Amino acid sequence: MTLSVAILGGSGYAGGELLRLLLGHPEVEVTQVTSRSRAGKFVHTVHPNLRKRTQLKFIPPEKLERVDVLFSALPHGATAPQVKDLLERGSIVVDLSADFRLRDPAAYERWYGWSHPFPEMIPDTVYGMPELHREEIRTARYIAGPGCTATAAILGLAPLFRAGVVDPSMPVVIEAKTGSSGAGAEVTLSSHHPERAGIIRSFKPTGHRHSAEILQELAVDGVAPNVHFTVTSVEAVRGILATSHVFLKEPLADKDLWKIYRGMYGQEPFIRLVKEASGIHRYPEPKILSGTNYCDIGWELDADGKRLVVMAAIDNLMKGAAGQAVQAMNIRCGFDETAGLEFPGLHPI
Amino acid sequence: MTLSVAILGGSGYAGGELLRLLLGHPEVEVTQVTSRSRAGKFVHTVHPNLRKRTQLKFIPPEKLERVDVLFSALPHGATAPQVKDLLERGSIVVDLSADFRLRDPAAYERWYGWSHPFPEMIPDTVYGMPELHREEIRTARYIAGPGCTATAAILGLAPLFRAGVVDPSMPVVIEAKTGSSGAGAEVTLSSHHPERAGIIRSFKPTGHRHSAEILQELAVDGVAPNVHFTVTSVEAVRGILATSHVFLKEPLADKDLWKIYRGMYGQEPFIRLVKEASGIHRYPEPKILSGTNYCDIGWELDADGKRLVVMAAIDNLMKGAAGQAVQAMNIRCGFDETAGLEFPGLHPI
Amino acid sequence: MTLSVAILGGSGYAGGELLRLLLGHPEVEVTQVTSRSRAGKFVHTVHPNLRKRTQLKFIPPEKLERVDVLFSALPHGATAPQVKDLLERGSIVVDLSADFRLRDPAAYERWYGWSHPFPEMIPDTVYGMPELHREEIRTARYIAGPGCTATAAILGLAPLFRAGVVDPSMPVVIEAKTGSSGAGAEVTLSSHHPERAGIIRSFKPTGHRHSAEILQELAVDGVAPNVHFTVTSVEAVRGILATSHVFLKEPLADKDLWKIYRGMYGQEPFIRLVKEASGIHRYPEPKILSGTNYCDIGWELDADGKRLVVMAAIDNLMKGAAGQAVQAMNIRCGFDETAGLEFPGLHPI
Amino acid sequence: MTLSVAILGGSGYAGGELLRLLLGHPEVEVTQVTSRSRAGKFVHTVHPNLRKRTQLKFIPPEKLERVDVLFSALPHGATAPQVKDLLERGSIVVDLSADFRLRDPAAYERWYGWSHPFPEMIPDTVYGMPELHREEIRTARYIAGPGCTATAAILGLAPLFRAGVVDPSMPVVIEAKTGSSGAGAEVTLSSHHPERAGIIRSFKPTGHRHSAEILQELAVDGVAPNVHFTVTSVEAVRGILATSHVFLKEPLADKDLWKIYRGMYGQEPFIRLVKEASGIHRYPEPKILSGTNYCDIGWELDADGKRLVVMAAIDNLMKGAAGQAVQAMNIRCGFDETAGLEFPGLHPI
Repeated sequence: MTLSVAILGGSGYAGGELLRLLLGHPEVEVTQVTSRSRAGKFVHTVHPNLRKRTQLKFIPPEKLERVDVLFSALPHGATAPQVKDLLERGSIVVDLSADFRLRDPAAYERWYGWSHPFPEMIPDTVYGMPELHREEIRTARYIAGPGCTATAAILGLAPLFRAGVVDPSMPVVIEAKTGSSGAGAEVTLSSHHPERAGIIRSFKPTGHRHSAEILQELAVDGVAPNVHFTVTSVEAVRGILATSHVFLKEPLADKDLWKIYRGMYGQEPFIRLVKEASGIHRYPEPKILSGTNYCDIGWELDADGKRLVVMAAIDNLMKGAAGQAVQAMNIRCGFDETAGLEFPGLHPI
Repeated sequence: MTLSVAILGGSGYAGGELLRLLLGHPEVEVTQVTSRSRAGKFVHTVHPNLRKRTQLKFIPPEKLERVDVLFSALPHGATAPQVKDLLERGSIVVDLSADFRLRDPAAYERWYGWSHPFPEMIPDTVYGMPELHREEIRTARYIAGPGCTATAAILGLAPLFRAGVVDPSMPVVIEAKTGSSGAGAEVTLSSHHPERAGIIRSFKPTGHRHSAEILQELAVDGVAPNVHFTVTSVEAVRGILATSHVFLKEPLADKDLWKIYRGMYGQEPFIRLVKEASGIHRYPEPKILSGTNYCDIGWELDADGKRLVVMAAIDNLMKGAAGQAVQAMNIRCGFDETAGLEFPGLHPI
Repeated sequence: MTLSVAILGGSGYAGGELLRLLLGHPEVEVTQVTSRSRAGKFVHTVHPNLRKRTQLKFIPPEKLERVDVLFSALPHGATAPQVKDLLERGSIVVDLSADFRLRDPAAYERWYGWSHPFPEMIPDTVYGMPELHREEIRTARYIAGPGCTATAAILGLAPLFRAGVVDPSMPVVIEAKTGSSGAGAEVTLSSHHPERAGIIRSFKPTGHRHSAEILQELAVDGVAPNVHFTVTSVEAVRGILATSHVFLKEPLADKDLWKIYRGMYGQEPFIRLVKEASGIHRYPEPKILSGTNYCDIGWELDADGKRLVVMAAIDNLMKGAAGQAVQAMNIRCGFDETAGLEFPGLHPI
Repeated sequence: MTLSVAILGGSGYAGGELLRLLLGHPEVEVTQVTSRSRAGKFVHTVHPNLRKRTQLKFIPPEKLERVDVLFSALPHGATAPQVKDLLERGSIVVDLSADFRLRDPAAYERWYGWSHPFPEMIPDTVYGMPELHREEIRTARYIAGPGCTATAAILGLAPLFRAGVVDPSMPVVIEAKTGSSGAGAEVTLSSHHPERAGIIRSFKPTGHRHSAEILQELAVDGVAPNVHFTVTSVEAVRGILATSHVFLKEPLADKDLWKIYRGMYGQEPFIRLVKEASGIHRYPEPKILSGTNYCDIGWELDADGKRLVVMAAIDNLMKGAAGQAVQAMNIRCGFDETAGLEFPGLHPI
């Protein structure tokens, strides 16, 4: 039986990607998609790839009727205040904003600068990263989709922290390189093509909000990791490469790392370990992941076996947003986990 | 019952794209893919998007066993000499090279500079463009896949020539803009990134070989059109936009053109007419077609209604090569014409 | 003796380029630069390349004091109404807007949709393209800087029209490809990086305003040429390539064309004829012109010698705007024509 | 009196950039430029920006006559064996290869995998970074031009190490992002445009050869720093951004850092400190440095004042190669240090 799904806030990039995925999903039917500013227009006027794929039009959010699964792609800070309304509109809610990602209400004040309006609801939500929280997702009523750069950073590092091989006295430095679509569909001077094209520009050298998720999800036994997170913008529309520099307790060999990564991810449908001895594709590369839900992970050890460089690549709109949200829905609803997420990506691109 | 398919010359870009499409095709099984230089290697070492999608390895071409449908992606000039061998290896052959595209053997000498070794076989082949030759494709033994820039040019202009509205005393000027993947996987100075990046560079101002196909396919009642074809390389990996400047016998209005284009393409699964009054997506745009088999067509009339500018956009590796070849196979084998070609494309990208 | 110069409207891209050129010019001193929105700020906060090059700050336009040469980089339509004020502020005015480019006041209504407020002043202005109007520029009080795509189109075609070799019964089709900086520093959805990056998108298939200048400047003995002008946006920040398709009265050979082009441009400091038999740089290429005042021109004849494809490349902000304006000032003020314009451009870039 | 200069190995990218700079230099005359493979051809066939700027042709290296200053742009490993010949050909030699950058001959075996043929000459050479070795350069006979990524890393970090504020018990992680021109003019699969365009790809996660220079030049009192160096390739032709993560002995404030950086670089003509409170140009950005000799340096402190992120941007072919070499020549020959290096760079670009 097909489930009904709707998208709240469907005119942005994550909303468009959700629409693409859900229109092609074998188990669901998209019944509504909202946009306050575009209400009444065909969705393909905003998402031109969907021309001839759907005759859906945007509706105002007020007209949204109850569905089985509601995807919310509202801005950060705008979601939490209306969480009760969301729960009335969807039997299951998948929220792509940051508003229920953090377990500690105080963290919102520290990292986002606002006070959470419904801290009492946080325990009923799940951080929607299947590789770390699959079992909780299976029964969740409210799933909080992870942040894009956080997803790449966490997936690259979690096996190492869980295996206990990271030297706790040393910093882990994470440098994420990101394309322009992660900043959204809103027009700004920093996204003006003559200014944005061809840049290699620090976006957030320190204090990036996704640090909060990384600290939360990489903690082991309540001990927060010593991570330092920096984001640099580069010329690309989609794509994130998170390069993490890890100092190990004891020297390790590649075979140890294969064991650690295979141990955690061996059965994961959307993690690929990419580590070849040679060739131009020997490391993860975000551009070939455009449109896919993969997170490709590779690494390289320094000669002394004590510094490890981990590379994790994703498409920020897919595994970093809409794709991961659909994967979570698949798990929650008992569908095949890869349903609607089969696109293998393009090469060359 | 699943048909067996194989790809001869599978290490190039069109070969890789065929592999991607055929691995995801519900009606066929890829049994073999050849590459002389890469024999023995996993296909994903060359086509990294296929990692975890197939365990196929390249085999040497000599080892190719007979299949139901053989896709040949050998270089121009290298295919014709071995055509008999191809016909022994595949019950149906879909040839992506130029070697059987032209009906007139003399045209090979004029445009390609070589003499066709098997001119007697030309009548048994079909120019594999479904929109113009669907019925012949249904029964073809040997299908010649059209050239990439020719596909965009022909699809944009055919309705006008068939409708008889083009002024025969005036030239039709076609300017195709193209990305870098059309030149193939072979490394050259002109494809060296520091030289190729960011260019707006004439590739073939005159004398482009695809002119021969355009002249052939736009001819009506044996009368060759007065077309002039120029190709300019621009910064993109995939994508062609063919802009054609047409002078009309009589002034026309937009509604006349809608009628002409809908008349020919109204039922076509892979043609979309893109002509909006406003918006940044009001004309065809190749980038959103990456990975799709669409040809998007739009136009604009000059104020006096006598010059018509037609824009046709494709992904050169898809509708311009592998996608169109799979579409032809679908027609030939009685499959759903869109089987394996469902990807809607990405936005933004 | 150093002349004083000022820039009215100095926060845009042409204004910034003027500032770069004039700060490095040996014969002038930039005394003031205005910006209503940025008044009080250091110019390098808007034009970061000028950091450590000048301590100038933007001033409000009202504070502009009289200078020897006033460069006006105000928007189209905003300049004409204040022309008398401009003439009071500058002994010589170089206006980069379109407001005094056209000789025929009625043309403003046709192409720009507004009625010229001071048509009586048009005869006292000069179209500031040195290659066509050098003598008039020498004594001009008010110089109207040409449009960017018009500059490339006109410079590529003028020698042919003047030589009388163009078949008047046939259309000349001009297709200009352009980068994003020509659209200015104003933020819009069409310039939003995820939307603008990697495009091959028709900008103005018909009706582009620069058509008016092209028609005016290519007219011979009052006969307007039969030109058709289309602009396509491609991935680049700077750069225009105008590809023109010309049908000749009589077949010509390359040596005829060398004679025609050398005849008109042989002594021009900023025109280079680029036509090699081979090599990746055998035709004009805008990217290597970034920051230079060159217009590189090349051509290719069709096999029958009757269709000629002319390629003309410029940097839209230089020969297409600020550079050409400085060149005009140099002529007007009796400076070395290349003063301040010596930068040879970069390769690779 | 004009000095004579020559370029040995002038057909590569650094050679072309040297040529551009030296042709425009007021104190020198380029008398010869060699290229084995291009001998007899005009230099502008390889460096198209120099068309109409010089009538020089490449000569075979054997024909090189003695000059006042010889710039050598031969490949790494090919220079050292012929060092005596170089010293005979040039009264002063500026060598852009790596062959005399390292003080410790054993370092060549470790990092480059070959044994230095003339270790006894190393003491007579100078590491040609003016900001660190200006006095030695003034009298040097043989100047070894620094590596491109090393230049950005060293210039960004040297003030901190010299000021003694870096915690020696903690690692300094340097992540350099780089464009494609740094890999040179040699055609390879990794530089093939369809493969190279749009990448965010680890180039050398560990073991990059420039580590050797960084370790050498950041050492204080013989104590090597604890640096870890990674290079990632991104979409750009020119440009490097080195982002360094430093852990401080004691918390510092911005004013402390301004003092440290101004103390070392306050008088440097080619270092700019770029650190604004807001704006899209608040941090260093390599793209606006194209063609300039600047190294722009900025930083950001973590909230606790203990992690410092330093960003240093250069044009790899300028401050990272040819520009720094000309700067060294200027110092050595007593010219104005900025002679020939005045280009301020472009914006937008």
